[in-house]
Amino acid sequence: MDVVSIAHGSGGKESSHLIESIFYKHFNNPILLKQSDSSIIGKVHGDIALTTDSFVVDPIFFTGGDIGKLSICGTINDLAVSCAKPLYITAGFIIEEGFSLDSLDKIAKSMGNEARKNDVSIVAGDTKIVERGRGHRVYINTTGIGVLDSRHSLSPNSIEVGDKIILSGSIGDHGMCIMNEREGLSTLGSIESDCSSLYPLISRILDSNARIRIMRDPTRGGVAQSLNEIASLAGKSMLIDEDTIPVKKNVSAMSRLLGIDPLYVANEGKVIVIVHGDDADNLLGIMKQSSLGVDSSIIGEVVERISGEVNVKTSLGGIKRLPMMSGEVLPRIC
Amino acid sequence: MDVVSIAHGSGGKESSHLIESIFYKHFNNPILLKQSDSSIIGKVHGDIALTTDSFVVDPIFFTGGDIGKLSICGTINDLAVSCAKPLYITAGFIIEEGFSLDSLDKIAKSMGNEARKNDVSIVAGDTKIVERGRGHRVYINTTGIGVLDSRHSLSPNSIEVGDKIILSGSIGDHGMCIMNEREGLSTLGSIESDCSSLYPLISRILDSNARIRIMRDPTRGGVAQSLNEIASLAGKSMLIDEDTIPVKKNVSAMSRLLGIDPLYVANEGKVIVIVHGDDADNLLGIMKQSSLGVDSSIIGEVVERISGEVNVKTSLGGIKRLPMMSGEVLPRIC
Repeated sequence: MDVVSIAHGSGGKESSHLIESIFYKHFNNPILLKQSDSSIIGKVHGDIALTTDSFVVDPIFFTGGDIGKLSICGTINDLAVSCAKPLYITAGFIIEEGFSLDSLDKIAKSMGNEARKNDVSIVAGDTKIVERGRGHRVYINTTGIGVLDSRHSLSPNSIEVGDKIILSGSIGDHGMCIMNEREGLSTLGSIESDCSSLYPLISRILDSNARIRIMRDPTRGGVAQSLNEIASLAGKSMLIDEDTIPVKKNVSAMSRLLGIDPLYVANEGKVIVIVHGDDADNLLGIMKQSSLGVDSSIIGEVVERISGEVNVKTSLGGIKRLPMMSGEVLPRIC
Repeated sequence: MDVVSIAHGSGGKESSHLIESIFYKHFNNPILLKQSDSSIIGKVHGDIALTTDSFVVDPIFFTGGDIGKLSICGTINDLAVSCAKPLYITAGFIIEEGFSLDSLDKIAKSMGNEARKNDVSIVAGDTKIVERGRGHRVYINTTGIGVLDSRHSLSPNSIEVGDKIILSGSIGDHGMCIMNEREGLSTLGSIESDCSSLYPLISRILDSNARIRIMRDPTRGGVAQSLNEIASLAGKSMLIDEDTIPVKKNVSAMSRLLGIDPLYVANEGKVIVIVHGDDADNLLGIMKQSSLGVDSSIIGEVVERISGEVNVKTSLGGIKRLPMMSGEVLPRIC
């Protein structure tokens, strides 16, 4: 089996061969192929949004995706929820000596496919090789550039009492998929990660006339963490109805097994939209038309500031506080 | 000693505390402090240059710099040699569990200082924590955005026979510093890395009337690698005069000890400029006025394509080929 060696990171002939045979092949676009110290992307007309994320997920291949697909989706989603159309992505690889070239090829292929599907070009890259035991297979940093949609101006300050909270589908799929495969808890069957690019759904949301206040993709820390962050920035509270939140059967079973509330588990293909109360039903209908939002539901609303930032009406009729996460929940899920 | 724990990467309270107490403190700027999924940098007037680089240097603290300073200088230099003024940088950290918070603070401080010195803002960041033995202290990815200087249009295609090759100072300082400190070869005394941001020197070069063909910062693979890449892209050959290339005494001693030609050793604060032959002396004078270019010299010229891409006239009067590097020279120097 051909593997990555330290020489692949030397900047010499082996580096060039690795870059050409894997990265140029899968990311193929004229800007990247110019091979200069910087990539010239030309003018961007409008306000620019910028985001960066490193991916260290373990395992690197999982049901529904791999670290490559995730690294593109994650960055596209961070741009999209900020109301920006994703345009360009850079990719930095930190590869452990001995990693299979075949696996690297598969990962790069996933990245290229996901980028093309979203009309995004991977225009610059970097590869570093570290010794065995000083990395873990492959880590990927992606940095994305997008252009803001000037029709909207999202801000937590615009959030008002009575605004509705829409979630685009079931929770915890990604985090539970990773946990399941990492720990080999196969008795529950496989769980598929929701890893996907949200831009096609979000562009429909932006095209609607709904008064969008803010959007977030609930990754690390899950829906609970995202809602707490929004509530804290907005200086408002939220009341969520547990019964309205879709949780898949196997995710629910896994949650009970591990004693982890799925509200705190990472998603990689879901969006939370806070929208003016009067526009919520209409927007919900629009979101349900997209395959990415078919299970969307209104999960709660913004309320006057009460004791806790975020509260949940439970299935049994009680109200419990949903605090900000603390401590280690699920490491290395993204 | 306070150290980084897995919980610092969970996305919860500990993550927020780490980010606020270290990164926000040292990178402090209004765009970063907005804390959204993407950072809104507004409009950039002109053509945009984009570059990404991951830094895995070992050791992380060395004479003349540290991984933080290097991560900012490296990305600023990649933009600058591409004829772009550096504007914004993103920073992605992959930190090994158990890494000292005090060291992380020092590194972030270096980054903030170097960015401010160059009028660059670190506008977005990301932190991931990996288990012990799956990283090595800290790895940093920086991605930079700059705006092209419209007065110049650099391209290897513009290179002509008779063009001169200017180098801004002594070679091999960074690579030999790292090797010296990694291997503890202290009998030779300390070697200081040349790690520095080249933008102040390069902006003088761009302000001159010299017909610049192309610039490169000779990092991994050193001057030899950069010249081979340029020669290959231009379809020309080069003849270098060994006697004109400044090598510091301790770097030269280290080279002999290790049997490594300093022409292949990394620099982190040097630039190679290919310029029209008639403009070379004037440009050399301008470069020497900058503290970053005080030891600049004309090291050779572009010649008709001959057998090798790059040839060197040795001190003894012979001519030897300077081939593209192959295999492992010095791993993890940047």
